[in-house]
Amino acid sequence: MNIVLLSGGSGKRLWPLSNDIRSKQFIKIFKGADGEYESMVQRVYRQIKAVDTDATVTIATSKTQVSAIHNQLGESVGISVEPCRRDTFPAIALATAYLTDVQGVDPEESVVVCPVDPYVNQDYFEALKGLSEQADKGEANLVLMGIEPTYPSEKYGYIIPESADETSMVSTFKEKPTAAVAAQYISQGALWNGGVFAYKLKYVLNKAHELIDFTDYHDLFAKYDTLTKISFDYAVVEKESKIQVMRFAGEWKDLGTWNTLTEAMEENVVGKGTLNETCSGVHIVNEMDVPILAMGLHDVVISASPEGILVSDKEQSSYIKPFVDKMDQQVMFAEKSWGSYKVVDVENGSMTIKVTLNPGHAMNYHSHQHRDEVWVVLSGKGRTVVDGFNNGITTGDVITMKAGCKHTVIAETELKMIEVQIGSEISVDDKQKFEL
Amino acid sequence: MNIVLLSGGSGKRLWPLSNDIRSKQFIKIFKGADGEYESMVQRVYRQIKAVDTDATVTIATSKTQVSAIHNQLGESVGISVEPCRRDTFPAIALATAYLTDVQGVDPEESVVVCPVDPYVNQDYFEALKGLSEQADKGEANLVLMGIEPTYPSEKYGYIIPESADETSMVSTFKEKPTAAVAAQYISQGALWNGGVFAYKLKYVLNKAHELIDFTDYHDLFAKYDTLTKISFDYAVVEKESKIQVMRFAGEWKDLGTWNTLTEAMEENVVGKGTLNETCSGVHIVNEMDVPILAMGLHDVVISASPEGILVSDKEQSSYIKPFVDKMDQQVMFAEKSWGSYKVVDVENGSMTIKVTLNPGHAMNYHSHQHRDEVWVVLSGKGRTVVDGFNNGITTGDVITMKAGCKHTVIAETELKMIEVQIGSEISVDDKQKFEL
Repeated sequence: MNIVLLSGGSGKRLWPLSNDIRSKQFIKIFKGADGEYESMVQRVYRQIKAVDTDATVTIATSKTQVSAIHNQLGESVGISVEPCRRDTFPAIALATAYLTDVQGVDPEESVVVCPVDPYVNQDYFEALKGLSEQADKGEANLVLMGIEPTYPSEKYGYIIPESADETSMVSTFKEKPTAAVAAQYISQGALWNGGVFAYKLKYVLNKAHELIDFTDYHDLFAKYDTLTKISFDYAVVEKESKIQVMRFAGEWKDLGTWNTLTEAMEENVVGKGTLNETCSGVHIVNEMDVPILAMGLHDVVISASPEGILVSDKEQSSYIKPFVDKMDQQVMFAEKSWGSYKVVDVENGSMTIKVTLNPGHAMNYHSHQHRDEVWVVLSGKGRTVVDGFNNGITTGDVITMKAGCKHTVIAETELKMIEVQIGSEISVDDKQKFEL
Repeated sequence: MNIVLLSGGSGKRLWPLSNDIRSKQFIKIFKGADGEYESMVQRVYRQIKAVDTDATVTIATSKTQVSAIHNQLGESVGISVEPCRRDTFPAIALATAYLTDVQGVDPEESVVVCPVDPYVNQDYFEALKGLSEQADKGEANLVLMGIEPTYPSEKYGYIIPESADETSMVSTFKEKPTAAVAAQYISQGALWNGGVFAYKLKYVLNKAHELIDFTDYHDLFAKYDTLTKISFDYAVVEKESKIQVMRFAGEWKDLGTWNTLTEAMEENVVGKGTLNETCSGVHIVNEMDVPILAMGLHDVVISASPEGILVSDKEQSSYIKPFVDKMDQQVMFAEKSWGSYKVVDVENGSMTIKVTLNPGHAMNYHSHQHRDEVWVVLSGKGRTVVDGFNNGITTGDVITMKAGCKHTVIAETELKMIEVQIGSEISVDDKQKFEL
């Protein structure tokens, strides 16, 4: 099976765990098979591999997620990097070209496209295999998954199938309706459209060549920023008459808000937290080092990270976005290609961060114009290059770098350091990169 | 007026703002006259001085609070330091001896004793003056304040006066009753016992000499740890027949729990915090640098500090103590005689703290056996002494100190530093002090 996982933007609905840099799909919140916590993307990847060890998994995403994906899934997963956001048709076209031109998949083969963040069981992935096999048959150009509705939701589009058969031609599509209209649709046999579908690669390649002037993946990648924003629904689905839908009746949750996310959590507390005996329906997700104590609360979610602290009635949590938009908080932690960092102190004229480098990784060789920096090695082994000079470093070593001085650090083992930045203007933009 | 403020122990009922080192009376939570936040102790001190600029104020407390008191009230306030806790009779005897032998107050003068943390208006302090003047008359050996009850509380002891006059002899005392019994007492004209009373210094000095073998303040201080724990009520009040009570009908709140504390707050949010429009009766007290967002909550208190995060229904918050007792959290911030510190990162084998020294202050000259330390100066000017060598320091300077090396820093201006401690055993007990 070839599968393309669409990994969406930053999203603020799960603040303070998601931020401008970290998307919800990378939050380690689910107890995995081995008792370790795993993220949505790790869970889905594990589930795909359990159904089909040979599955070719490609994640279609933006540059900002590449580090997190490699950190969480390793290096073997395919990544189709969108140079900028251009809506779903260009993204799916690019991923399709990536599969044929980079991964060398035969254009006659089928691919399944699905979001990276459904909370589902193995039967869902069995169903994806079914979609792929159905697409192989070539009875239709697109084969959609139709999810059997459990309530008249206003959040989803609806698919009206021609028949109640397991696999049916699609009669028509309906936009997100009101609850009353949704109930009507459902009485007519409508299914939720979860944005999951399969097609033969050549079908979308042809569509792409019709709409975009490009030769191959690399050409498409190079001119990506010139493409018009257009959705796959609008560019392809609405114009296609040969579409089938396959029913899926298993559990399917869209974990877009704290309310739905906490429903999927197996434990009430992730991280340091205590609920007293008068709490009910309370979830704590705590990424800070300090304890949280909750007393006498009902149906409340509490989440804390270096970005901030949310305490919300679960229903209310779906209205979070405008409040988070208003916050002008600098990014307090981030995963990078080389590891991660966390801001531990901010002052006028200084910022102190904790840096963790993964073994074998290095920062870019870089300098800053407006700040001096000091590194204090907390643990691990590695070496620094400072203005061209190499030095081994280990626990307790101190390295001082004046503004303008070129520097990097290469980790041999996991390397933890405190970095003190001192200067009147401290900004992430004050960075010049150099070849080492 | 001579006044002794009894400043009690650490108290965990206002966790995470109070901890083993910082007591609730030092939390800056009230908007003062100048718009700056002030603590309970600052508020009470300001109120006393407004009623009587010449008042001799003495705070009876333990050694751990001395730094915080000087930081918040300056150097002119008297402090009677209890070398260890020995209940209220020894504490009041020591403070009384301190007033006569150290402050030189005439034993014929009166003193008013009251807790350091009532939330009251100016009329309360006028009433204290009244108590003191009544004690001066010598009609009774003790003059108590009787607070007119506003409800049949189970939390206070009751005083039954002989008459309904403004000033009356006390008929009898009653222990904390049930609400039903309290209502009975109140119908008989009972008053709350707020632990506020006045006496002539010589009265308690004589009582002290009857019960304890000592010569003067210094002798009493020296043998303090040998004294028997006994309450003032038990040792003095219950055995005394000549006791008067003066009525007080003004506002009086005991801010011992989050529930009562938040009632006294003028603003719903202290620190970084946002309440959405569906919140009601919610208070945020945030001492962290990150924002708190509260949505859809009712009658909840949220408090965050480097020690932890509390989210509690206000009623439930009075049951906090056993939960906090169970937490084995190291102290994450503290006020010291020289300034303050805050833990910003803890790892196996290292701890990083942020140190702020007040101008003109210095740490002890000290060394550690099991850890190396690095200082990085974030801002300010001062000088260090490291193994006897003096050095001026300023922003950006780095000082490294190996285990065993003696060191201190003296601040000329306010001085902020990051201190990285590295060693396999990091403990506050690993400290040897030296003369400079």
